[in-house]
Amino acid sequence: MKLLKETIAAIPGLNEYAMQQTQLRLDGLTKPPGSLGKLEEIAVQLAGITGQTFPTVDVARVVLFAADHGVVEEGVSAFPQDVTAAMVLNFLNGGAAVNVFARQAKSQIQLVDIGVKETINHPELIQKKVKAGTDNFCLGPAMTSEEAIQALETGISMAHLAQNQGVQLLATGEMGIGNTTASSALTSVLAQLPVEDVVGAGTGLDTQGVERKIDAIKRGIVLNQPDRNDPLGTLAKVGGLEIAGLAGLILGAASLRLPIVIDGFISSAAALVAYKLAPASKNFMLASHASAEPGHQQVLNAMDLEPMIWLNMRVGEGTGAVLMMHLVKASILVLKEMATFSEARVPGQLKMEGDHV
Amino acid sequence: MKLLKETIAAIPGLNEYAMQQTQLRLDGLTKPPGSLGKLEEIAVQLAGITGQTFPTVDVARVVLFAADHGVVEEGVSAFPQDVTAAMVLNFLNGGAAVNVFARQAKSQIQLVDIGVKETINHPELIQKKVKAGTDNFCLGPAMTSEEAIQALETGISMAHLAQNQGVQLLATGEMGIGNTTASSALTSVLAQLPVEDVVGAGTGLDTQGVERKIDAIKRGIVLNQPDRNDPLGTLAKVGGLEIAGLAGLILGAASLRLPIVIDGFISSAAALVAYKLAPASKNFMLASHASAEPGHQQVLNAMDLEPMIWLNMRVGEGTGAVLMMHLVKASILVLKEMATFSEARVPGQLKMEGDHV
Repeated sequence: MKLLKETIAAIPGLNEYAMQQTQLRLDGLTKPPGSLGKLEEIAVQLAGITGQTFPTVDVARVVLFAADHGVVEEGVSAFPQDVTAAMVLNFLNGGAAVNVFARQAKSQIQLVDIGVKETINHPELIQKKVKAGTDNFCLGPAMTSEEAIQALETGISMAHLAQNQGVQLLATGEMGIGNTTASSALTSVLAQLPVEDVVGAGTGLDTQGVERKIDAIKRGIVLNQPDRNDPLGTLAKVGGLEIAGLAGLILGAASLRLPIVIDGFISSAAALVAYKLAPASKNFMLASHASAEPGHQQVLNAMDLEPMIWLNMRVGEGTGAVLMMHLVKASILVLKEMATFSEARVPGQLKMEGDHV
Repeated sequence: MKLLKETIAAIPGLNEYAMQQTQLRLDGLTKPPGSLGKLEEIAVQLAGITGQTFPTVDVARVVLFAADHGVVEEGVSAFPQDVTAAMVLNFLNGGAAVNVFARQAKSQIQLVDIGVKETINHPELIQKKVKAGTDNFCLGPAMTSEEAIQALETGISMAHLAQNQGVQLLATGEMGIGNTTASSALTSVLAQLPVEDVVGAGTGLDTQGVERKIDAIKRGIVLNQPDRNDPLGTLAKVGGLEIAGLAGLILGAASLRLPIVIDGFISSAAALVAYKLAPASKNFMLASHASAEPGHQQVLNAMDLEPMIWLNMRVGEGTGAVLMMHLVKASILVLKEMATFSEARVPGQLKMEGDHV
């Protein structure tokens, strides 16, 4: 609890001087003012985060937390639970979608077992298992408060490790059969939305499956009575270990002035937990894509974040966040490589007062 | 006219066998079926275009046509006309936004002077000037039909050059002070929309400037009476030389089975001309970003194309198309590099009939 409290207390504001300097640079580049839209906003945000007029985001890493969910007993997923462990091995062997995108974007991947049911032995897997999967939240809380804090602090420690290893840009990733169910439960409680509005097909449920999922979430909420003003308690009661790890990673990144790209629905539910624990953490988040899960847009709305890539994906893993790295890097390349009007001797904008000149 | 007619006649259908094979491959990869959304659609489309189950899009090129517009006399742009030539030199010197993004995406850039008012001498500039800028369409047609055909055929020849030089993925780019005015006029006529609905601030007009622009377009349409069923005549009467070049590039790409990424509003207006001349050309187009210009979404709607990157940009040049190359390449890397369920020994989806198992 000490690390969590210290981390939240350490989250700084954005560096406004650096933001102003970066905006000035952007305004002098050979393009109509503001015409690079959100890329300019990203560049200015990165300046505010890092305190540098010309930030550097060359060393990127997606941290992927894997965990299992007791609630899969309720028939809420189209895939069996042992897919979690099988996919962790697939990630470690480089064969999953996020591996392909990470190689393309020259991003590192770090895999953390924070709560997979099976024991996985692999030299590159970071062993931080808090427990072997959450408990079924239809029968009681998914985990204790202590376990939730341990998972959050594991995430924070992964942010510190990233900074120590020279990482300049973080991204969130996850794997856990059943984790859209936990994310929908968290979103329903913390964003105060009807369960039906934030539940989708996940990895591919049919209509009956979606109904089972809605029913399980409703039963879990009635049984556990999560308090929307208590994000930590809500996380413990109906959340997940990988979601807690991601929330911790986000808080840790914010406390260390590291920008962090938020992936899809599950990552955004984790971001909502971080935001509720420490609203200032939002300044360090970069939204990425809009997933096909209906709850995703709702979570982003709850934080006033806007996705920039619309591919209708629903694979998770960090895939959207890693694709977003290309655009984040583009925003910085603009700052560093574009010519100014004076360098390129391009005439500036016409004066706008009164008649056209 | 012969090359144009032959090109249109040569546009093939998509290779359905390759599309089926690629879909089968995608369905066997370690992800929920269809969960990569539009990336899967792109991969299948590229298979249909190239006839290859595993298409290759490593060699990419943005072809950037530059031209001037007589209609700038009417006060329709926030920048003076000589910015066109100055920006062409900026492109040639590598200092513009599209240069930065092209270096990042490892894309070639080819610059074509198809109608810049000034004479520009530079060894890397392809000299294909049809005329030194269009005429002011408020006083008569922007160009003759012969000039429009010459510009279209110049675009077709650039597609042939690209294929001869081993290019596997094309993208559209443009520069021309005043060209949102021509694009709005074309969109209004060819998509049958009120002028007010398809006019925006361009490079940064104020409210009075936007009103002047709307008025100029209306006067041009009343004077020239373009026929919405005659895309070639409409292009000549209220279009632009770079827009004609891009429409030709798109038709040429389609006839040669080359995929082509469509940039923002101006490029999409050119795509609409190509689509009206040869509806089958649409199969070879990949939409990219949604620009801030209000007419852009309208043109895309008219072709039932959906943008995938939302950055609120309004800089043109090919910037959005080049950023899109990362996603196009990602779709192919998925096909080539992801593990299958059997390779990775990941359990498949649960059976969905009846009760959950």
